[in-house]
Amino acid sequence: MRTVDVIRRKRDGRPLRRDEIEHFVTGVTNRTIPDYQAAALLMAIVLRGMNAEETAQLTDAMVRSGVRVTFEGINGTPVDKHSTGGVGDKTSLILAPLAIACGATVPMMSGRGLGHTGGTLDKLEAIPGFRTDLSLQSFRDTVAGVGGALIGQTSEIAPADRRLYALRDVTGTVESIPLISASIMSKKIAEGIGALVLDVKAGAGAFMKTREEARRLAESLVSIGNASGVRTEALVTRMEAPLGREVGNANEVVESLETLKGNGPPDLAELSVLLAARMLVLARVQPDRDAADRAVRQALASGAGLESFRRIIERQGGDPRVVDDYSRLPTAPDQHRVVASDSGTICEMDAELVGRAAVALGAGRATLEDDVDHGVGITVLVPRGAMVARDEAIFLVRHRGGRGLEDAVALLDESVTIGSGPCGEEPLVLDEVRLPED
Amino acid sequence: MRTVDVIRRKRDGRPLRRDEIEHFVTGVTNRTIPDYQAAALLMAIVLRGMNAEETAQLTDAMVRSGVRVTFEGINGTPVDKHSTGGVGDKTSLILAPLAIACGATVPMMSGRGLGHTGGTLDKLEAIPGFRTDLSLQSFRDTVAGVGGALIGQTSEIAPADRRLYALRDVTGTVESIPLISASIMSKKIAEGIGALVLDVKAGAGAFMKTREEARRLAESLVSIGNASGVRTEALVTRMEAPLGREVGNANEVVESLETLKGNGPPDLAELSVLLAARMLVLARVQPDRDAADRAVRQALASGAGLESFRRIIERQGGDPRVVDDYSRLPTAPDQHRVVASDSGTICEMDAELVGRAAVALGAGRATLEDDVDHGVGITVLVPRGAMVARDEAIFLVRHRGGRGLEDAVALLDESVTIGSGPCGEEPLVLDEVRLPED
Repeated sequence: MRTVDVIRRKRDGRPLRRDEIEHFVTGVTNRTIPDYQAAALLMAIVLRGMNAEETAQLTDAMVRSGVRVTFEGINGTPVDKHSTGGVGDKTSLILAPLAIACGATVPMMSGRGLGHTGGTLDKLEAIPGFRTDLSLQSFRDTVAGVGGALIGQTSEIAPADRRLYALRDVTGTVESIPLISASIMSKKIAEGIGALVLDVKAGAGAFMKTREEARRLAESLVSIGNASGVRTEALVTRMEAPLGREVGNANEVVESLETLKGNGPPDLAELSVLLAARMLVLARVQPDRDAADRAVRQALASGAGLESFRRIIERQGGDPRVVDDYSRLPTAPDQHRVVASDSGTICEMDAELVGRAAVALGAGRATLEDDVDHGVGITVLVPRGAMVARDEAIFLVRHRGGRGLEDAVALLDESVTIGSGPCGEEPLVLDEVRLPED
Repeated sequence: MRTVDVIRRKRDGRPLRRDEIEHFVTGVTNRTIPDYQAAALLMAIVLRGMNAEETAQLTDAMVRSGVRVTFEGINGTPVDKHSTGGVGDKTSLILAPLAIACGATVPMMSGRGLGHTGGTLDKLEAIPGFRTDLSLQSFRDTVAGVGGALIGQTSEIAPADRRLYALRDVTGTVESIPLISASIMSKKIAEGIGALVLDVKAGAGAFMKTREEARRLAESLVSIGNASGVRTEALVTRMEAPLGREVGNANEVVESLETLKGNGPPDLAELSVLLAARMLVLARVQPDRDAADRAVRQALASGAGLESFRRIIERQGGDPRVVDDYSRLPTAPDQHRVVASDSGTICEMDAELVGRAAVALGAGRATLEDDVDHGVGITVLVPRGAMVARDEAIFLVRHRGGRGLEDAVALLDESVTIGSGPCGEEPLVLDEVRLPED
């Protein structure tokens, strides 16, 4: 098969056959297809699209480009949650321990922050000693031992995706629902789960700016998951302002621990409970949503979730004393307050700009090679929807010797819109895509 | 400027700005833009198109990627002819000497055969000693000395096009009127001409299969040429069956010489005279088409065209005795006749299949690195539209020890459709695009 003929076929708007998709993914994986041919085909896919069958076949071929993990000897259905990326979104650190405390098995493979969004691995690595680079065997052992683990994607998982993702980033071919779907789902299917809850973010701080786009992506993801034998549901959730009050790394760990202690901000606590409950139902740990909701709230109230998190930290090499002593987490030495330019209601707090401010301080990365400063970050003192007085502090910025401070302050100033009356409020959950059988 | 932003802009269907096009062409020329980004942008251009302004700017940037030749001290307007590629199309070898004999200056840079189409350089190189790889200075001297020269594109001419063309070939991005237009016209504008006649082929043996597509390409080419100060016209001509009776290299030289001696087949002779006459009008050597037509026919009848060709051959290092002694040209030692399977009229003779048969014998090349066998080729004994008896020979194949013969014979058999009645005949010239001022 000639690669150029596959490219021409998609260029002319015809669906690719299974063997053509296989040829492409195999060639990308073992590098027999040069980057320039892969780039041309990716652009043709962005502009011509792929139907549901092609997208499922692409995902399947990407799964088979590497290892598909199995969890033998484990009772029940391994279940995971995946978010399409937001600002201040630390729900994984809360819901994974809660679901484990409720009896679920949670083998979670997460990503790093890129662009203005944060990443679960960066947050966890703020905990001294915490290792996210477990081998597959160690991953399996940890899941068997404490009911779950939070690690990074290993090199055995969907290697085709790694090369394609790097190429898409520099060739303007990221924005494609079939390509995004195959990238997300190939990694999730390969990690060996049987159930998955997707949190598809929509809004200013999300990759999908509108509810409609997010819905389309959610439908595509759910369709692929269920076709591959992974019981999959999706929530479309609001990502206009940051989730919770902390944006950074160590400070997000603190907020996660506080939430597990029952002191979390309402939006973060509610979303974490909701997603954890959905996980329990999909994994058939609880029979229905009401029972699952009660179980999760019980695990929160009893402190069982917090104890789960402590065990995971210990098992993955981290210092479990951080749970009770936040001073063991890194903190940047310097502080700066960003104050309101006017009195009124905070009608908007653009999450993308807040995220970019955190990146400017060093909390995120512009490229995957950049180092992260786990101690810097931003605390939202007055959240969206609340009243503020002129010169009152809206943000507390933790920085290191002024690095990136000027840019961060400018972005934070720009992120806030202060209005004179009460501002409209949208619900946290905008839409959902349920199991086809429901 | 980030290349990925340029790619995204075109991907989203927006026109590129002049500085973005400049960034792309400069980056392709000096290799600061990697192939995979160039490939992604090319595919976006194929699928999103380019408007006339973008196409003109792309052409202009490609011209400026190298040298634009000037002919100082030469009277009149240098004029060239360019064909989009056909089978048996040896008009350059006939019309260049005729136009020179009529007083035109003809600095012609030609290409090699690729795919099923022949190339002027390959045909000329069938003449022992003939050099097509002159330096720019030697090119200028030859033009000044004998009124014209027929050479290959030098490395100084439109280097951006060379890299883009190689990339387009392997990424399925050849089929795009803006990209084809910029490729053709950048080379022609850079060679220093002030007037140009385009022969845009349409039909089974051409790149553009329909008259409508050919018309659109012709309009694009004429628009770019005139916007760049090159007086440009285009003819859309029929390329269903081979032009003339010979397909190959040395045998096409013989047919060209015979045509210059007044013994050419009608279609080849007519098209050569027509194109040469247009060149004379565009270069203002003759005031109008009638006068130009008379001048060209006079140069043909008097043998002045033949003498021009003899001088060019001598000046470019070739053996001028071939003009009178065809045995000095290479000829393959073996012959084979392909006979009619039935009696009737030859209603079709698919030029692409005949061209592919010639390539199979070794007369053309599958890749630019292949060698050409100048002595092999095909003679059409019974042309399209003529009657044939069963078992009468339609083609005479000159081959070397049976190399490629089986494939060639199969293709030639397939190329011919024999009907029972008279077959419809289309005119040679299907359409034309004239100077905007006309």
